[in-house]
Amino acid sequence: MALHVYKFGGTSVANSECIELVADKIVTAHNTGDDLVIVVSAMSGETNRLIQLATSLQQTPDPNNLDVLVSTGEQVTIALLCMALEQRGVSATSYTGAQIRIVTDDSHGKARIVDIETERMRNDLEQRKVIVVAGFQGVTESGRITTLGRGGSDTTAVALAAALNADECRIYTDVDGVYTTDPRVEPKARRLHRVTFEEMLEMASLGSKVLQIRSVEFAGKYDVPLRVLSTFKDGEGTLISKEDTAMEQALISGIAFNRDEAQLILTGVPDRPGIAAQILGPVADANIEVDMIVQNTAEDNTTDFSFTVHRNDCAKALDILQSICDTLGARQANSDDNIVKVSLVGVGMRSHAGIAARMFRDLARENINIRMISTSEIKISVVIDEKYLELAVRTLHQSFGLDSEPVQKSA
Amino acid sequence: MALHVYKFGGTSVANSECIELVADKIVTAHNTGDDLVIVVSAMSGETNRLIQLATSLQQTPDPNNLDVLVSTGEQVTIALLCMALEQRGVSATSYTGAQIRIVTDDSHGKARIVDIETERMRNDLEQRKVIVVAGFQGVTESGRITTLGRGGSDTTAVALAAALNADECRIYTDVDGVYTTDPRVEPKARRLHRVTFEEMLEMASLGSKVLQIRSVEFAGKYDVPLRVLSTFKDGEGTLISKEDTAMEQALISGIAFNRDEAQLILTGVPDRPGIAAQILGPVADANIEVDMIVQNTAEDNTTDFSFTVHRNDCAKALDILQSICDTLGARQANSDDNIVKVSLVGVGMRSHAGIAARMFRDLARENINIRMISTSEIKISVVIDEKYLELAVRTLHQSFGLDSEPVQKSA
Repeated sequence: MALHVYKFGGTSVANSECIELVADKIVTAHNTGDDLVIVVSAMSGETNRLIQLATSLQQTPDPNNLDVLVSTGEQVTIALLCMALEQRGVSATSYTGAQIRIVTDDSHGKARIVDIETERMRNDLEQRKVIVVAGFQGVTESGRITTLGRGGSDTTAVALAAALNADECRIYTDVDGVYTTDPRVEPKARRLHRVTFEEMLEMASLGSKVLQIRSVEFAGKYDVPLRVLSTFKDGEGTLISKEDTAMEQALISGIAFNRDEAQLILTGVPDRPGIAAQILGPVADANIEVDMIVQNTAEDNTTDFSFTVHRNDCAKALDILQSICDTLGARQANSDDNIVKVSLVGVGMRSHAGIAARMFRDLARENINIRMISTSEIKISVVIDEKYLELAVRTLHQSFGLDSEPVQKSA
Repeated sequence: MALHVYKFGGTSVANSECIELVADKIVTAHNTGDDLVIVVSAMSGETNRLIQLATSLQQTPDPNNLDVLVSTGEQVTIALLCMALEQRGVSATSYTGAQIRIVTDDSHGKARIVDIETERMRNDLEQRKVIVVAGFQGVTESGRITTLGRGGSDTTAVALAAALNADECRIYTDVDGVYTTDPRVEPKARRLHRVTFEEMLEMASLGSKVLQIRSVEFAGKYDVPLRVLSTFKDGEGTLISKEDTAMEQALISGIAFNRDEAQLILTGVPDRPGIAAQILGPVADANIEVDMIVQNTAEDNTTDFSFTVHRNDCAKALDILQSICDTLGARQANSDDNIVKVSLVGVGMRSHAGIAARMFRDLARENINIRMISTSEIKISVVIDEKYLELAVRTLHQSFGLDSEPVQKSA
C-alpha cells in the first residue's frame, strides 16, 4: 500500500459542492488501501476577504496578527472536509499547522519550515484514518501562528511528503497538468507526462503558474515525486521528478513566456570597470527586482547596458536611470514595456548543441527581431516585441517538435 | 492600578466600525494605567454562517470537527482587534484558547474549563501589553480544540478574571445593564446599580438573557465582581457581586418572566406514593426538561398533578401523559400553552415576611387568576394566563416600588 499526500487548492474547495467532490475522490483512493494525508487551502476568496477586513483596520497590518487572521481560512476547510469524509463513513482527523507542529522560523507571512513532527500522523495512519492538514501555516517554537506565504499550501504538502517519506505528492488544481506552453497562445500545446524538477523551476519562474516555486525546490531537494493533476477531470496529470535515463533524449520540454516585464536601456555608457554596479546599485536600493541583464561593448569604448524589471517598476526604474545618466556620462536612458520574454526550457539542451542557433534561425525566418538574449544550462530566453509573442511561440512549438507526442517522453 | 477583564460580544465586534469603537474604548482605559485582558466573541453572524456550511456537508456534524470550525470565528476577531489597537499605538498580543492554554475536558461543544495557564499573560501585562483572548474556546490536554457552548465567551472572561484575580470583569454588550424588568413590557423599568449573583442567576434563568448562566455561577463561586454595561453608550451599567450589608434592605430586585413555557395538567390521579415518579419518569426519558412542578391533594383521595415544559415540547409531553393516563387511573390529561411564568426575585425576601401574600393580593385585585405557585428562598414564581402578562408585571413593578430609585440600592 502506498502513502500519498494530496493537496487541494482554494478553487478545489471553493464551496460545499467542491468539498463533496474532493471527499468522493479521497474516499475512492482510501478504499484502494492507500494511506492518505490531505493538505487543503482556504476556500477561494476567503483569504482576500480576511485581508480586506485587516486593511480596513490597520494601514499596514502587522504580519504576526495577519497570520493569526488568515490561518483561520484553512482551519475552516479542514473541519469541513473531515465532516464530508465522516458523512461518507471514512474516519478522519484534522490538524492545524500548530497542532501537527509544523515548526517554522518566526518570519511571519513568509515563514520557513524547520521541523515537522510525524508521530501523531503515523499513529493516525496505523488506525487507517485519513489525515487532513491545514496548508500554508505553521507555528514558531514559542507557539505563535505563522504562514508560509501565498501558495504555501503546496510547500506544506511537499514538506509533509518528505517528512513522511511518502511515495508521491499530488497537487490537485484547476488545470490537468503542465503543458508544453500556454494553450491559450498555442492551441496545439500538449500536456507533458513528465518533467524534471529543474525544468519545472524554469517554467514556473517564467510564468507557468501551476506550482509555487518553493514547493518545487523543496520536492527536488528531498526527491519527492510531485504530480500535478486536475480535481475536476480524470487523468494522470504531469509527474515532476528527478531526471532519469528515459528522459535524456528530450530536446526541450516546453516554451515559457512572461508578459510582465519591461526593458530598460542605457546607451553610450563609458565602458569601465564597476559600471554595472553603479547602474544596478540604485535600482536594487529602490527595491526593484531585476531579471535579465545584458551588456554589449560598442566600438567607441562605450557600452549599451540593458535589463528587465517588472512592468509595475518600469517608471520608477527609468527615473533612477535618468537621474544617474549624467553622473555616468551615458548618452541616454530609455524604457520599453511592449516587450515579452520567451524561453525554451529542457534538460536535453545539456547534451545537444545548436539549440540556440536553431531558435534564432526560426525567429529570424519570421522576421522577429531579438532584443536581448540570456542563456542557462537548461534554458534559452530571448526578449522580443510583444506583438510577436504568439507567432514566436507557435513557430518554436512546431520547430522543436512539441506539437506531437515524442516517443521518449512517455511516462 | 487595577486589572480588568473586558468581554465584547458578537454585536460589539460585528464589523470594522464596531471594532474601531471597541479599540477606542480599550485605548482610553489603557491610558488610565489599568491592566487589561480583553475577551472577544466571533463577529455576529459568523458562527451561524459556519454552522450552515457544516450542516450542508454532514447531517449531524461531529462536535469535534464543529469545534475546529467555529473556533475560527473568535480567532478572526482577536487578530482584527489587535490590528485596530496597534493602529492606535497600543501594543497588544492575541491568544487563541489553545495558545493561552485554557485547558478543558473533552466534552466538545460544551466543554468545561479545568485549568488556565497565567504565566504568559502575567509577562505580557508586565510589559504593559493589552492581552486579547478568543472567547468561547479551549483545548484538551491532548491538544484538540474545544468550545464552551453558545455564550461561552462570558465564561471565558469570568474564568480569566478568576485565574488572574482581576479586580473586575466587565461584560460589554448591547444593553446598558440589568433592568428591574423588560422595558418593552414595563416602560418604567429601571436599570439596577447592583444585584447579587443569586438574584442574577434567578433572573437569567427566568429569561432576562443578558448573561450566560454558567458565567454568573462561575463569578459567584470565585467571587469575581461582574459588571454588565453597554459597548455603545456610556454608563456604569449594573454591578453583579456578592451580597453586602448595604443591599439587605432591598425588598425585591426585579421581575422576570418567561413566555416559552406550557402547562401540562393531569387531573384525578389516585393519590398514592410514587405517583410523581410514575408521571415524570417517562417525560424525563423523552429528554423533556420540566421546570415547575405542583401537586395538590383533592378531597376524594385523588390529586391534580401539574408541571411546565418548554412550549416546543408541549405536544410530545401531552402524548406521553395521555398514554399513561389509563395505567395511572387518572381522569384526564390536558395542556395549555397560553400561559406565562412571572417571578419576583430579591435577596430581601429572606428577611421580609409577607411578600408572597402581597404579590397574590396585588394580582387578585386585578382579577388575575394564579394557576401555579412555586417559591424558593429568593424567588416567588406564579403561572398565569399569558394575556395578563403586561398587567401583572406593571402592577407588581409599581407595588414593590421598582418604578422609583430606592435609597438602599445606590452603588
